[in-house]
Amino acid sequence: MNYTPAAEIERRIKKFQAKLVAQELDGALLLLNADLYYFTGTVQNSFLYIPAGGEPVLMVRRSVSRGRTESPLTNIVPIRSPKEMPDILASFGYRDVKRVGMELDVLPFNLYQTYRKLFSPAELSDVSPLIKEIRAIKTPHEIGLLRQALQVVDKAFQAVPSFLKEGMTELEAAALFEAELRQRGYAGCCKMRSFNQEFFYGNVCSGSSGFDPSFFDGPVGGSGACPSHPQGAGWKKISRNEVVYIDYTSLIEGYTGDQSRVFCIGELSPQLVKAFEAALAIQKAVLASIKPGTLAEEPYLLALKLAEEMGYKDHFMGYKDHQVKFLGHGIGLELDEWPIFAKGMKTPLQPGMTFALEPKFVFPEGAIGTENSFVMTETGPEYLSITPEVITYLP
Amino acid sequence: MNYTPAAEIERRIKKFQAKLVAQELDGALLLLNADLYYFTGTVQNSFLYIPAGGEPVLMVRRSVSRGRTESPLTNIVPIRSPKEMPDILASFGYRDVKRVGMELDVLPFNLYQTYRKLFSPAELSDVSPLIKEIRAIKTPHEIGLLRQALQVVDKAFQAVPSFLKEGMTELEAAALFEAELRQRGYAGCCKMRSFNQEFFYGNVCSGSSGFDPSFFDGPVGGSGACPSHPQGAGWKKISRNEVVYIDYTSLIEGYTGDQSRVFCIGELSPQLVKAFEAALAIQKAVLASIKPGTLAEEPYLLALKLAEEMGYKDHFMGYKDHQVKFLGHGIGLELDEWPIFAKGMKTPLQPGMTFALEPKFVFPEGAIGTENSFVMTETGPEYLSITPEVITYLP
Repeated sequence: MNYTPAAEIERRIKKFQAKLVAQELDGALLLLNADLYYFTGTVQNSFLYIPAGGEPVLMVRRSVSRGRTESPLTNIVPIRSPKEMPDILASFGYRDVKRVGMELDVLPFNLYQTYRKLFSPAELSDVSPLIKEIRAIKTPHEIGLLRQALQVVDKAFQAVPSFLKEGMTELEAAALFEAELRQRGYAGCCKMRSFNQEFFYGNVCSGSSGFDPSFFDGPVGGSGACPSHPQGAGWKKISRNEVVYIDYTSLIEGYTGDQSRVFCIGELSPQLVKAFEAALAIQKAVLASIKPGTLAEEPYLLALKLAEEMGYKDHFMGYKDHQVKFLGHGIGLELDEWPIFAKGMKTPLQPGMTFALEPKFVFPEGAIGTENSFVMTETGPEYLSITPEVITYLP
Repeated sequence: MNYTPAAEIERRIKKFQAKLVAQELDGALLLLNADLYYFTGTVQNSFLYIPAGGEPVLMVRRSVSRGRTESPLTNIVPIRSPKEMPDILASFGYRDVKRVGMELDVLPFNLYQTYRKLFSPAELSDVSPLIKEIRAIKTPHEIGLLRQALQVVDKAFQAVPSFLKEGMTELEAAALFEAELRQRGYAGCCKMRSFNQEFFYGNVCSGSSGFDPSFFDGPVGGSGACPSHPQGAGWKKISRNEVVYIDYTSLIEGYTGDQSRVFCIGELSPQLVKAFEAALAIQKAVLASIKPGTLAEEPYLLALKLAEEMGYKDHFMGYKDHQVKFLGHGIGLELDEWPIFAKGMKTPLQPGMTFALEPKFVFPEGAIGTENSFVMTETGPEYLSITPEVITYLP
């Protein structure tokens, strides 16, 4: 097991504490697995209290032993029930708190009520924007883990010609692609922070399936296996001379890369080939435009303008009334991190940000385009994805 | 695609409306995908209003067309923003609501604030217990879908001897097992209602990995692939003469079956063989004790008593301080449905309930036991699982 270095954890906590002080909070109680992992290096059934000053306390229901093995934190103590929390915190000198931060973007209302009573009369305040800001800037350690994730997804894409066959269902192709990822350490649930955005691995859409819209906040839907999970690979059989659009996350050591490539058994229509080249041209122009300080909405607005000039107004990032209004998203411990490349997003891009950009087009005959993962450097975006950007034709 | 029959949806909504009336609520606004699917037959980016009396209204951000194809509801209308909701509802005659039900067990606090303002001065009230009660009793249609799920997981278990090899990692075995499920329509995210209980497919633990505890609320942890996802299959290589514990969900047409079986390349220690037989004996005694009206805690208490009498006090449902305090759980659209077979649960078991029971033991040398899915009938539990309950030995 690769554990998060102590220096990483210390730096993250210090950054967060500075923000707690600026917000005049006494501390924050964090519960979400993604945040627990970020600030402790372990994911246990636990409660993390980070004071505005001083050492954090990780209170663990289970497993205390595993928490102590995985996390470099000093104070890792057992707890049986949340009710014990005020006393445990008091024993570390954290008492009479007046303002406590929590992740109110994800904490269910009923649990909010429980914690409000527990910390009464303290006020609970949302610290999720502070966490998202810190997490948006990755360290070299984190960028290294993302590179690993993109190396793994490259291996899966490289394996596609060995298993993609005419007549197999999208679900069969998905099963084989996912097995390539899984055996190389794809870790489990790909986390999304937004409410109700269930996400599973990725997407295989062949031909017209790429035209099926879905609830999911992405440009390409897919039929899915059934109406309860109406997104991604479905029962359609893969045919000759149609686009096979494959879009997958790669979740390795906690960090999620994101990449799409397209395949075709036989020949692709000139319309789709042209759209693929348009996607590459848009990506190239967008990448050239991004410098530190670029606002996160600018790449989207540029891509949208270029797509419209090229005649793709009704096809860019979805078809007509099913279009999504973004070009990309931050990647890291969650798939929907900051920055978000969408209209109105005024976040200046900074070195250390990692993100996926995905100029894509949807036509009744299928979905096509590209998606790559990048890290922002002092001079502009650098590819984390390493797979050649071509349409791969199979005989 | 198999769509939910209109008669099913009508019956579910009528049951829910009767409960809304009893709670003196004007209606309920439901957002969670699992509940949307249950009451509409479709999962779109949408808002479902079910009045205490009258026709429900499904307001869809996207995809309206897909919602109309999949759902038998009459009123399916487009919406751009939640802000339009009061006007849309008023246009259907639903105005001046005073008490509105929502899923406050899952709704994040920040969203709760948004909806409270939107429906101000109406009071928001938690209807999740009402939904859980209704969903706990399955119809023959739903039981049929669960039977399909258990048939699919049986096929995956039957395939294990064809791919399980000494020296492969748990992750490789998991990849192949999951591919067996996926190609047969495993639909995607296995839903859990509880906050922060991330769940992915299932578990392959070989030998000592079954002794690794985890945050997850189940008897067997597993190392997982990395500290960010510390549960389930990991990098340990599968050896001869150790237990290979395989526990998987099967999510087909929205419904989730749950089953475990054990395998061994070579020979198993007498200690583990004896514990496996003890698990079967406990299961047999528990099944014989369950009748309509049995309280949900009784099977757990009986199993615990039997396990202790057999000398397994420190091993039943986890090892020592990592034991979980339940014997099983309801299954359906979510993996953590009602009833919960745990101490203090006074729910009387009723025909139509579907659940998994999982008497298991954990030792330093590995995890062993059994798990099957059942449906409650007028006379007692009936197996939904169809896989023979034996330790499968491979040469």
